Amino acid sequence: MDNPYAEGIEHVELAEGGASVRILDQTQLPNRESYKYVATPEECFAAIKRLEVRGAPCIGIFAGYALYVLARRLNLGSNEDFSHKVQELASYLNSARPTAVNLSWALNRMLHVCQANIAEGQEAALKAMHIESLHIHQEDIQMCRSIAEYGLTLLRNGDGILTHCNAGPLATSRLGTALGPILLGHERGLDLHVYADETRPLLQGARLTTYELSKAGVDVTLICDNMASMVMKNGWVQACFVGCDRIAANGDFANKIGTSGVAILAKHYNIPFYTLGPSSTVDLDCQTGADIKIE
Amino acid sequence: MDNPYAEGIEHVELAEGGASVRILDQTQLPNRESYKYVATPEECFAAIKRLEVRGAPCIGIFAGYALYVLARRLNLGSNEDFSHKVQELASYLNSARPTAVNLSWALNRMLHVCQANIAEGQEAALKAMHIESLHIHQEDIQMCRSIAEYGLTLLRNGDGILTHCNAGPLATSRLGTALGPILLGHERGLDLHVYADETRPLLQGARLTTYELSKAGVDVTLICDNMASMVMKNGWVQACFVGCDRIAANGDFANKIGTSGVAILAKHYNIPFYTLGPSSTVDLDCQTGADIKIE
Repeated sequence: MDNPYAEGIEHVELAEGGASVRILDQTQLPNRESYKYVATPEECFAAIKRLEVRGAPCIGIFAGYALYVLARRLNLGSNEDFSHKVQELASYLNSARPTAVNLSWALNRMLHVCQANIAEGQEAALKAMHIESLHIHQEDIQMCRSIAEYGLTLLRNGDGILTHCNAGPLATSRLGTALGPILLGHERGLDLHVYADETRPLLQGARLTTYELSKAGVDVTLICDNMASMVMKNGWVQACFVGCDRIAANGDFANKIGTSGVAILAKHYNIPFYTLGPSSTVDLDCQTGADIKIE
Repeated sequence: MDNPYAEGIEHVELAEGGASVRILDQTQLPNRESYKYVATPEECFAAIKRLEVRGAPCIGIFAGYALYVLARRLNLGSNEDFSHKVQELASYLNSARPTAVNLSWALNRMLHVCQANIAEGQEAALKAMHIESLHIHQEDIQMCRSIAEYGLTLLRNGDGILTHCNAGPLATSRLGTALGPILLGHERGLDLHVYADETRPLLQGARLTTYELSKAGVDVTLICDNMASMVMKNGWVQACFVGCDRIAANGDFANKIGTSGVAILAKHYNIPFYTLGPSSTVDLDCQTGADIKIE
């Protein structure tokens, strides 16, 4: 388990032939790389609630696998009882973080295939749920790869990239969003250097981004948030890449506190600034950034 | 000792009739408000070396008092021996922080009056040194007051002020430089609100600025460095006040890392940005900021 990214081993995956979900406990990072198996409703709920699994896409992937595992462990006579119990389990998991869109989105997908197949029996429903959980995961990997491929066209060999907060593999699947182009560029032999804002107060940059990049072998320098102006002034940064929580119809977007400061500094120093995310992050119901509700 | 600023009690002062210097140990702030008395050469040296006393003007004030106290405690026969020993003590104290300009500047002033008066005897030299040490302190208080009076003309009742790092009473004498206008405004009944950057990595803003302002009864909000853009965007900041380590001939200046970022954000949001310092901080030998050596 020494190199989850380079080895293609994920930090969330079906384990023990589908009898449990194996997760990397993100609350222990970067000091301890602690993998654990969760298999009961209570363990799955706690993994989300306690942020052992975090990052919207990652929560979605986990929820898919978790509902499949929990459904498999049911031992019920009638198809109706089975279907009803799966729905109960989904509601229970969903209540762990009610505001996480990807959580309810993934659980709804899983419930949909369960209900669409239960008429053919519990085995058929379980098989469809298994396939759906793998799809949710694979789609995320593919989405990250598309973002990475596109983002990589914006970078050149030798570039320095400044990033804020965490938008890498831990929050999504294999490549991440904002870190995707960097990881892909590194795979292809580009010499890239990342400046990671520590991202106070919760230090996602210091704890998670540097962990992911070091793990993948990418050269990374951790900086205090207030050092961004200095590294830009010194000519060490050729692009800023950040993730996003939501994108409004006019292109405004919301992301971790401090992101607008980075964008303004980048503009001052004439450095291109990009936010990277999947199309599902665009919310056409928000006309501008002012319509985005901040947690 | 509950309110050093409001009561006019300083954090560095002659104590016990001139037999010691009483200092506030800044390494213990803000968790412990620990005053101590220093009287031996080793204790005085350690107070500077260990940053118990910090901030260029504050170090100068301390050095004046310390050299006077150490000279008083000498018990020597000849005036020549006395003068020679005082010079040795000054060299010793000066070696505690060789790069601190105010340290050598204050010690040189003290040595000068010692030598100018020793012909009239040790008592005369000591009396002159006593007066000089009080002058150094009083001049700093006056300088801070002048800066505060000028700076206050830039503020209006109800203003929010963002500051970075620490340029208050702890680093200088009573009013500080960048915090002077705020403290004076508060004295005069103005309703001011300060946003203090925590100032990573050493947290001078979080540890010292918030301590000073709370102590003086000024409304202060501690923010992470990366929150500056947000508080400016929200219209909560009407001016930025920061201190400075050195000002070049063209007006460029050097200050704690992160200051240029605050200045660029202020420009973006059309918020006036000021650096406050005494004329001694202007270094005409530096044509531009590029000539200022950064520690």
